[in-house]
Amino acid sequence: MTNSVRADGRSNGQMRPVTIERGWSSQAEGSALISFGNTRVLCTASFTPGVPRWLKGQGTGWVTAEYSMLPRSTNERMQRESVRGKIGGRTHEISRLIGRSLRAVIDTKVLGENTIVIDCDVLQADGGTRTASITGAYVALADAIEWGRSAGFIAKKAVPLKDSVAAVSVGIVDGVAMSDLAYVEDSRAETDMNVVVTGSGDFIEVQGTAEGAPFKREELDSLLDLALVSARELTVLQGSTLAQALTEGR
Amino acid sequence: MTNSVRADGRSNGQMRPVTIERGWSSQAEGSALISFGNTRVLCTASFTPGVPRWLKGQGTGWVTAEYSMLPRSTNERMQRESVRGKIGGRTHEISRLIGRSLRAVIDTKVLGENTIVIDCDVLQADGGTRTASITGAYVALADAIEWGRSAGFIAKKAVPLKDSVAAVSVGIVDGVAMSDLAYVEDSRAETDMNVVVTGSGDFIEVQGTAEGAPFKREELDSLLDLALVSARELTVLQGSTLAQALTEGR
Amino acid sequence: MTNSVRADGRSNGQMRPVTIERGWSSQAEGSALISFGNTRVLCTASFTPGVPRWLKGQGTGWVTAEYSMLPRSTNERMQRESVRGKIGGRTHEISRLIGRSLRAVIDTKVLGENTIVIDCDVLQADGGTRTASITGAYVALADAIEWGRSAGFIAKKAVPLKDSVAAVSVGIVDGVAMSDLAYVEDSRAETDMNVVVTGSGDFIEVQGTAEGAPFKREELDSLLDLALVSARELTVLQGSTLAQALTEGR
Amino acid sequence: MTNSVRADGRSNGQMRPVTIERGWSSQAEGSALISFGNTRVLCTASFTPGVPRWLKGQGTGWVTAEYSMLPRSTNERMQRESVRGKIGGRTHEISRLIGRSLRAVIDTKVLGENTIVIDCDVLQADGGTRTASITGAYVALADAIEWGRSAGFIAKKAVPLKDSVAAVSVGIVDGVAMSDLAYVEDSRAETDMNVVVTGSGDFIEVQGTAEGAPFKREELDSLLDLALVSARELTVLQGSTLAQALTEGR
Amino acid sequence: MTNSVRADGRSNGQMRPVTIERGWSSQAEGSALISFGNTRVLCTASFTPGVPRWLKGQGTGWVTAEYSMLPRSTNERMQRESVRGKIGGRTHEISRLIGRSLRAVIDTKVLGENTIVIDCDVLQADGGTRTASITGAYVALADAIEWGRSAGFIAKKAVPLKDSVAAVSVGIVDGVAMSDLAYVEDSRAETDMNVVVTGSGDFIEVQGTAEGAPFKREELDSLLDLALVSARELTVLQGSTLAQALTEGR
Amino acid sequence: MTNSVRADGRSNGQMRPVTIERGWSSQAEGSALISFGNTRVLCTASFTPGVPRWLKGQGTGWVTAEYSMLPRSTNERMQRESVRGKIGGRTHEISRLIGRSLRAVIDTKVLGENTIVIDCDVLQADGGTRTASITGAYVALADAIEWGRSAGFIAKKAVPLKDSVAAVSVGIVDGVAMSDLAYVEDSRAETDMNVVVTGSGDFIEVQGTAEGAPFKREELDSLLDLALVSARELTVLQGSTLAQALTEGR
Repeated sequence: MTNSVRADGRSNGQMRPVTIERGWSSQAEGSALISFGNTRVLCTASFTPGVPRWLKGQGTGWVTAEYSMLPRSTNERMQRESVRGKIGGRTHEISRLIGRSLRAVIDTKVLGENTIVIDCDVLQADGGTRTASITGAYVALADAIEWGRSAGFIAKKAVPLKDSVAAVSVGIVDGVAMSDLAYVEDSRAETDMNVVVTGSGDFIEVQGTAEGAPFKREELDSLLDLALVSARELTVLQGSTLAQALTEGR
Repeated sequence: MTNSVRADGRSNGQMRPVTIERGWSSQAEGSALISFGNTRVLCTASFTPGVPRWLKGQGTGWVTAEYSMLPRSTNERMQRESVRGKIGGRTHEISRLIGRSLRAVIDTKVLGENTIVIDCDVLQADGGTRTASITGAYVALADAIEWGRSAGFIAKKAVPLKDSVAAVSVGIVDGVAMSDLAYVEDSRAETDMNVVVTGSGDFIEVQGTAEGAPFKREELDSLLDLALVSARELTVLQGSTLAQALTEGR
Repeated sequence: MTNSVRADGRSNGQMRPVTIERGWSSQAEGSALISFGNTRVLCTASFTPGVPRWLKGQGTGWVTAEYSMLPRSTNERMQRESVRGKIGGRTHEISRLIGRSLRAVIDTKVLGENTIVIDCDVLQADGGTRTASITGAYVALADAIEWGRSAGFIAKKAVPLKDSVAAVSVGIVDGVAMSDLAYVEDSRAETDMNVVVTGSGDFIEVQGTAEGAPFKREELDSLLDLALVSARELTVLQGSTLAQALTEGR
Repeated sequence: MTNSVRADGRSNGQMRPVTIERGWSSQAEGSALISFGNTRVLCTASFTPGVPRWLKGQGTGWVTAEYSMLPRSTNERMQRESVRGKIGGRTHEISRLIGRSLRAVIDTKVLGENTIVIDCDVLQADGGTRTASITGAYVALADAIEWGRSAGFIAKKAVPLKDSVAAVSVGIVDGVAMSDLAYVEDSRAETDMNVVVTGSGDFIEVQGTAEGAPFKREELDSLLDLALVSARELTVLQGSTLAQALTEGR
Repeated sequence: MTNSVRADGRSNGQMRPVTIERGWSSQAEGSALISFGNTRVLCTASFTPGVPRWLKGQGTGWVTAEYSMLPRSTNERMQRESVRGKIGGRTHEISRLIGRSLRAVIDTKVLGENTIVIDCDVLQADGGTRTASITGAYVALADAIEWGRSAGFIAKKAVPLKDSVAAVSVGIVDGVAMSDLAYVEDSRAETDMNVVVTGSGDFIEVQGTAEGAPFKREELDSLLDLALVSARELTVLQGSTLAQALTEGR
Repeated sequence: MTNSVRADGRSNGQMRPVTIERGWSSQAEGSALISFGNTRVLCTASFTPGVPRWLKGQGTGWVTAEYSMLPRSTNERMQRESVRGKIGGRTHEISRLIGRSLRAVIDTKVLGENTIVIDCDVLQADGGTRTASITGAYVALADAIEWGRSAGFIAKKAVPLKDSVAAVSVGIVDGVAMSDLAYVEDSRAETDMNVVVTGSGDFIEVQGTAEGAPFKREELDSLLDLALVSARELTVLQGSTLAQALTEGR
């Protein structure tokens, strides 16, 4: 695999600058404004004691997620889904993916009968919105759990989070595997893969799609290699972000 | 009218700190992230050459607006309107108000056959979201018009904007008229009034509502007095913001 | 302000002929078919013991309103909102306005745990449908309350109505302030204002909108003057209508 | 079949008092407010030159109908279909029935490329709303056609109406066949039948339904006998109504 | 009435080949894949102990039906109703007809507080889908009741079914009455009639519609004659099908 | 990996019996009723000359797919999406997957300006409905293309299909990798993976999800190994099915 020059000068395995502004919202129990380059997603976590009716009395909590894009987060304005009166397939798909990814690292028995709803609203989109959402959502989720602990809804010593979770998109562009595709790269990719990885380096979700030609086993392998490296970087950033004292917000 | 002490120490006629971050979005033709205290609204203006079918061939442009709140912009999470499958009455009402307010200061003949859609998305809500939206939307609109001029869709010497527009909420709380109500004040107000004012100090819209007891003519008069003073402050801030060179964004 | 001649020969401060046919419906607990000239609205009040679940046990009642236009109430047929599958912004706005106006004169504690739903269906539209709706709705509401009393759901000596309520539209047409605009006047008005007034002459709602040029403080004042005069006439008519024995209907 | 005494003293074959207030609306091209006893339906006919896209260039016109009930036309208030966001099966069924019934007496070739939409809005319901709708709709339709002729959209000598149409409900109550069932009768009927008949006495639609026990061939025959007699009375009334000069309305 | 030759060589009173594949589904409590010639409908009956909330505690059961067509059951592909976001009038009408027809032969008191939902999904359509649905639904319903008995939800000796039910379409094509119209015949029929008949030969529903010219009393009579003969054939087939032991499925 | 005994006695890498009933529909241009054990899906392909408006004049065709489940295809009856008024996230997700999978093997330039819509309706569900859908859809698609050729819409020597496509679900159950999971296995799987493979053995889509614990790289590898073996078997069956002359249907 040659090291082609990317539009923004990155090497193939290099992510765009990633920043996490923790505690952005003064309303939510946990929140993070995350950027992967020009992609910016506001992730909020809403903690509510109690669970939906169908879960009551089973001693387990509930974590779910909703994803949405602002109409002018993209280069051309999109119609709002509230105006269309229905949610599109892509939105549904990504909301479900974020929810599954977070549930994979949470022990809902330990969470107890509490509900956490994660909202990922894309303020600006330049590729990788679903992977940035998952990565930021984890930070908001962790803070909401701490909020629940300090408010007495979760036991002092309970540890509902079994691991951390981060996600990265990788793809093959002009025959070369690359990490964290920006929009211009993504739209030209032959193969596009979203990989959700735990802090321990295991897979939660692997979604590879041939956009052009079908892909071969070796290509899949090299994409997974790249993804694991980038995911590790995100894990480290999440950890250092959460290690600081949270002063802003509630 | 006595000068009661407000929760945040403001005097009755004093607004909360107002900031306008112009050019926040790198995608939209015009944008502003405006804050009235803890209320934060992202306003984007999307410029498209051409008009909807029903306006074609008449030589006039079209300006419209959509307002929405993020689900966790508020103290308790609200269900998304896209999930409910319909837009609520309050959202409709505010979108229409913003659109009317902006159209009142634009000469659509001079704009020519171009369309500008304003999106006001409330990222955080603490009272006054509709008045912050109108005030920020004007800045985004002005930049989108400049974009249209530099892109050649609007003639070099054409001036589609006839005036500027700003808005402020005023109300009677505990018998006292106050400007720019925060959420805790708004929810206790006996009378709530939203006033949309041009840079020249004339009215575009006056909407006064008795939340508790009906209000008297003198009360209405004192509210209008306060509103005109605050609106003038916003007009000055809009002017100074737009007077600077726009470096960020597109 | 000169006294221009209006299309139907009225003076500027003169309303169109107003009639109230009380007890039009033999099904509803209260009803009125009200006409402001060619504008005709059927107002019904439905009384039900009990309140929605979220209000139970608080000892307070609930009053709400829904407004709608028949598809051929207007000069050109409109599509039904039931066929479009959603309620438009204007309908929402007016329904909410009617509801707020009625709740402003009712003491829901005294009403007790009873629900009254007001339906205002425009059979024919010629301007002023929302103000006719509010004015007629008050009559239907008053009769529904009497029904509730005679049926034993409201105590013999309880007086839930604190005042009466009426509404009128005023506007500036060709630079002249006029009362009770007909459709042809309304569509040419520079400024359009709907004013909701109690029987005592205080304001419940003031909604003024610049349709063309922004309006000045003096114009606003002259519109309010006209509105208060017309509202008083409506108050008198409501009173005399309700003073008669109700023989028709239930 | 014995001649039982009905609640309102009618004989079994006798209809309730039927009145037709032609030209009720000053907006619509044709209109009629029809009453079958306490059942009152406002029928308007909207005439528009031209046809829907899928019919263009074929030289034939289009006639369609929509039926709806006001929320408090009934004894207990029903939720609006616009609020529910969808049209119920019963509404659909009746709208389709009215449309088919009218199209059966119109020669759309002679009508030419013109569209007539009939709206039947039930203001008060006491059984027989669909048959009253059809009977009143015919009068509104006939006037709309005359309007089209006088406006020059239909040729002077063209006769689009091939016949008149009226409808009546009949049913078996307590083993006895009766005509024009009121609500209290209808809800107790073992068999309910709606019959749509031309002025010449032929059938356009026969819809018989066993509400309780299945019905026998002889019962069906006696119901059809009654229906033909009542339909003839309606035909005579329609004729005399349309024979008068139309002075009111447009 | 002459005996014209039909497209497929049938005589006027002759049905197409009818087959019933009982127990087609291994999931449903009762099921039948029924064919009337090329028309094929999958009927399933879902048995659930208990009734909807509004029926609870009254000791009566509930039977309802839903009809739907696969998008390519027809000659040209139709849009799915789930994609359109609403159910069309024709679908509603037929679902209601099937439900009424089945309820007419069931004693819901004897059924007890149990719910049976019948789904009729048209896999291939060639005329007569609603009559095939009713005829097949009866077989599925009968098996679901047996399932409920063997599962102990219905008492051993209880007989909820009072009779059997079958349906057939008849019509006048080129002036001749014919039974069981195929699509090409149906689309040319002057009069179209659907007749639902009990095993005892009484009527549950008679729906005759003039598609072209209105029809006369004698024509109606000859159509009913044909319908009763064909319905008898279907009753016999249903009986012999249900007389066999059910080996397949659950 | 040990060779555990599966509920139906299969070995871990063994698929359930697979049958393809080609040409099941006499209406569609291509069709197949495919079974993976008790899972049965009716796949139809609808060929229409021309393309949607947004593709016109570009010389390329369009292939899309819709997936749906009959309400009683499952063990407990599900509500219809047409009744709910909206399409669920899972349905959207699978429809999109089927469409992408088919488009990956078709050269839309060679297809020319023609549209093929694939409908996959699940008649009975027992796990693997999406993989059965893709596998059957390919057969229907191939026949629709032949239909287009014989009807003259596709050139005699044009070969729009670049390869075949089949799909299989694999998963880890009780720590063991297994192929073609039945419902009882799927609901217990720790990891679930759907793999879409071309006839040449390359990947079109790989979707692996951790249902319980995250999965390791070796586990992913062993699942892919199984998937490739099963996909090859499906490819062979598709080939032999299509090699026969198509006699039934159109």
